[in-house]
Amino acid sequence: MTAPRFTLHGVGVGPGDPDLMTVRARRLIEGAGVVAYPHPEGRGSLARSIAAPFLPPDVEEIAIALPMRPERAPAQAAYDRGAARLADALGRGDVVVLCEGDPMLYGSFMYLAARLPAARVEITPGVAALAACAAAARHPLAARDEPLSLVPATLPEAEIARLAGVGGVAVMKLGRHVAKVRRALAAAGLDAVYVERASTPGERVLPLAEAPDPAPYFSMALARRADPWL
Amino acid sequence: MTAPRFTLHGVGVGPGDPDLMTVRARRLIEGAGVVAYPHPEGRGSLARSIAAPFLPPDVEEIAIALPMRPERAPAQAAYDRGAARLADALGRGDVVVLCEGDPMLYGSFMYLAARLPAARVEITPGVAALAACAAAARHPLAARDEPLSLVPATLPEAEIARLAGVGGVAVMKLGRHVAKVRRALAAAGLDAVYVERASTPGERVLPLAEAPDPAPYFSMALARRADPWL
Repeated sequence: MTAPRFTLHGVGVGPGDPDLMTVRARRLIEGAGVVAYPHPEGRGSLARSIAAPFLPPDVEEIAIALPMRPERAPAQAAYDRGAARLADALGRGDVVVLCEGDPMLYGSFMYLAARLPAARVEITPGVAALAACAAAARHPLAARDEPLSLVPATLPEAEIARLAGVGGVAVMKLGRHVAKVRRALAAAGLDAVYVERASTPGERVLPLAEAPDPAPYFSMALARRADPWL
Repeated sequence: MTAPRFTLHGVGVGPGDPDLMTVRARRLIEGAGVVAYPHPEGRGSLARSIAAPFLPPDVEEIAIALPMRPERAPAQAAYDRGAARLADALGRGDVVVLCEGDPMLYGSFMYLAARLPAARVEITPGVAALAACAAAARHPLAARDEPLSLVPATLPEAEIARLAGVGGVAVMKLGRHVAKVRRALAAAGLDAVYVERASTPGERVLPLAEAPDPAPYFSMALARRADPWL
């Protein structure tokens, strides 16, 4: 076994505003020879659009389309094929994988890296959409001894209500689940704020009661009990 | 009522590595006339040390000492006094409050801003220690339909075990709580990784079983069940 010559970079590009990229992410993107990005089949890559102004003009791009279906096998096959393309590119130089928000938080980078066990992997953490939503709404997520639950909106109503009862809560990617999430947070006795497309020109902050239904995929509901330290 | 002339900036400076500051945070710090930072009484401010290389030479500094005691009243009095100093500075210009990680996630900025209801507040989200720990350990925090629980290590053992059973889990600020957190995660059937001082020169990654006890305050245990999509 020889040590790998080149590095697979998982780079968080933040939530949308290019100024919310880290200094390190900006530098890696500006110096990239090859960038790769998973994206939902039939849709563009938000991560690529955030990074676009900083890509070198002659950069090589590897777009990895992921099927948006509940079955496991098609996704696994897409990750297998994507990882093979990354392995090929890693034979020639470093590869920068562009990741929305943070690579380790609800990202697909982990599935590519897991298929390349011999690769040298470096992660550049990024600002999560969670933090951008909280900033837009000026909503403290959690403090002191409070737990915080991050909850995908696809979970059953009772499970969302149960997790929301624990401390601070963020219900993510509302989409078609707005009515269910409203009921679950009301059952937990919480008033929630709704944020869509945080840190982008389309950013909106509303009471969850006034949120559109369906909501965009890039949207979140945030709630927290009264804080005795205020 | 006239609109406020100046802005109170809550600026996340990230987890430690200055290159993990956002481009916007770096710009705000380099242009600051007044910076403020809450810090634990008797200890320095990590946020200030991260920002130090970028502070203008003639910047005015407001250090706000916070008592580290369980009672509510001394902390509230310290926030009251700190907010009064910020209000005074806001009469003369913008104020940049330096916040470790992200300002809305277990930060003290929220307590200062809440005491200045007439101020114009802008939040610059930052990279959380959570993301830096996950990057250091190459540990996916959560994916797809998994919830993620952020759990302060000060909570009771049974509560930590219960929250850890739900999905991904991060137990934060281990300090004197290492043995309890080990028992709680074992009770939930999880193997955990331990990370201290992520993204700084003192960064260490170990199995939680081999973590020091007591651990530093800036440390975290991360765990997650096997992922069927890998």
